[in-house]
Amino acid sequence: MARVKNQIAAGVDLGGTTFSVGLLTREGEVVAHQQYDTPRSDGEPLSLEAIVAAVSGTMESATVKPHELAAVGVGIPGPVDPEAGTIKQCPNMHELDGVNVVELVGEGVGAPAFIGNDAYCATLAELRYGAGRDVERLVMFTLGTGVGGGIALGDSVQRGPRQIMGEVGHIIVDPDGPPCGCGSYGCLEAIVGRDGIVGRVALLMREGRASSLAEMSGEGHGLLTPKMVSEAAEAGDAVACEVIEETGYYVGIALCDCIVLCDPDLIVIGGGIAAAGDLLFEPIRSTVRRRSMISGFDTTKIVAAELGSEAGMYGAAALAWEGTGG
Amino acid sequence: MARVKNQIAAGVDLGGTTFSVGLLTREGEVVAHQQYDTPRSDGEPLSLEAIVAAVSGTMESATVKPHELAAVGVGIPGPVDPEAGTIKQCPNMHELDGVNVVELVGEGVGAPAFIGNDAYCATLAELRYGAGRDVERLVMFTLGTGVGGGIALGDSVQRGPRQIMGEVGHIIVDPDGPPCGCGSYGCLEAIVGRDGIVGRVALLMREGRASSLAEMSGEGHGLLTPKMVSEAAEAGDAVACEVIEETGYYVGIALCDCIVLCDPDLIVIGGGIAAAGDLLFEPIRSTVRRRSMISGFDTTKIVAAELGSEAGMYGAAALAWEGTGG
Repeated sequence: MARVKNQIAAGVDLGGTTFSVGLLTREGEVVAHQQYDTPRSDGEPLSLEAIVAAVSGTMESATVKPHELAAVGVGIPGPVDPEAGTIKQCPNMHELDGVNVVELVGEGVGAPAFIGNDAYCATLAELRYGAGRDVERLVMFTLGTGVGGGIALGDSVQRGPRQIMGEVGHIIVDPDGPPCGCGSYGCLEAIVGRDGIVGRVALLMREGRASSLAEMSGEGHGLLTPKMVSEAAEAGDAVACEVIEETGYYVGIALCDCIVLCDPDLIVIGGGIAAAGDLLFEPIRSTVRRRSMISGFDTTKIVAAELGSEAGMYGAAALAWEGTGG
Repeated sequence: MARVKNQIAAGVDLGGTTFSVGLLTREGEVVAHQQYDTPRSDGEPLSLEAIVAAVSGTMESATVKPHELAAVGVGIPGPVDPEAGTIKQCPNMHELDGVNVVELVGEGVGAPAFIGNDAYCATLAELRYGAGRDVERLVMFTLGTGVGGGIALGDSVQRGPRQIMGEVGHIIVDPDGPPCGCGSYGCLEAIVGRDGIVGRVALLMREGRASSLAEMSGEGHGLLTPKMVSEAAEAGDAVACEVIEETGYYVGIALCDCIVLCDPDLIVIGGGIAAAGDLLFEPIRSTVRRRSMISGFDTTKIVAAELGSEAGMYGAAALAWEGTGG
């Protein structure tokens, strides 16, 4: 079937090792999806020309013509200025700091370009095409090395004038808790981010508890990831189960704060450790149930993210559609 | 000067002991303001006729003609259904449970009527006529017997579909903290509401600390109020100062959560204990400063409420203006 003008949006999800390009219809149908190595392994700085070339290459492979491309969205793993179209800071890819993506990618691709940070894109992706497609109010948690997230109210993801609305990883869940990279103490990220989870596994093992994670943890437990902990928990490892349950408890505390401050219809939990399923979700839900007695608090649904590692690509394409008024 | 049609809104702030009626222009000029005893002292139930009569009486006293009244707003000390126009539950005045205020007061007064809960009204009042009149995003905390509040984003106070958005008193500031009336533990209200503050004063006195509050605290410290504690602190009482400082710390923790979830331009603190001034605000601000290292977090202004005990009346009138599209 021949395509009409402006029928496709491109979404670019930029990462330090790889980046992916997706071509999506407004309804979220994936016409093409390709992954590329981020061209930095030889010490060369990443240039936006590489992104432009990848978008063009993906379009050619799917026989998408230039006039069919409505817009391109680029998701950045760091803070951006969406109005100016610039990257404020790109950790691990500092050659992009201050670069005007909207101008350079837009000119290169020959279509309007838009940028958003990766947490914004993941939230928008779940809102438009994932677990939140039937709601207008959601809070998203992405539990990974750090804890990212976002808030959608009135069917749009909101970041606020300082671009900090939805930084759910910095909700204080234990005021006497461990220091966080942000300078505060006891933030959710400090407790259930990668370092917090691995640290608690290590502590239990130091206390003499046996765990299948011991043999894979490496020097100083440097090889452990939250995903490995969630897999060990699924396999019945008692130490891993205990850490996942405690993780669920602290996530639940943060959810309670989101409920009274945002009144969401839905809370979406993604990231590597969400693979633990009920082992994680049961303590989250029971904490919210026990902690939220005010009428109506417990009507907020808590579900797993649906788009997984493709959320960034979906979200970048959704960003492009939003930018064109779609 | 003769007034034109629809130039005045009436605001009714309903309380268990007294209620007040204000007549305000759209710009917030108070044309008249009267306080009435809530007619329940003789055991009779409160009727809306008494409210209608008070609005009419206040209008007559200020020679405001019926055609000059654009609308009336009624602030209720309990949860409401603003769309249906009904009171869900009115603690201490259960005879009003389920009553349709919009219909009965509207017919009685002969102008459109609107209802909101008191926390909504206080927030709207500060947004329109008080500390927040120059901003579009604010979070309000009212520190009283309980801890109420509200959130304004995009220049309107938002309560969410379940009417719980902005229940800042139930932010969890210490997950192992004391039980809260809501059924949870360690909510801000459980620690810095009346019972929490008085309980901490009592604890310090039981530990043998001398305090000017001892002589006025009554049987089981039943006579102490947060306002008395803030006045004693201002007079230099060490126990009171310590409790106010600790209160500021916990309020500061809650503010940090509001900053990452709402990105407000301004946080407004009202209620009896806010009279303690810098004794309260300094620990609040230093907690937020120490806890909010992410770029931009510390640009949120934290100020005292401006409208004091009249916030409810101002807010009810603002509600009326909003209802008429003002």
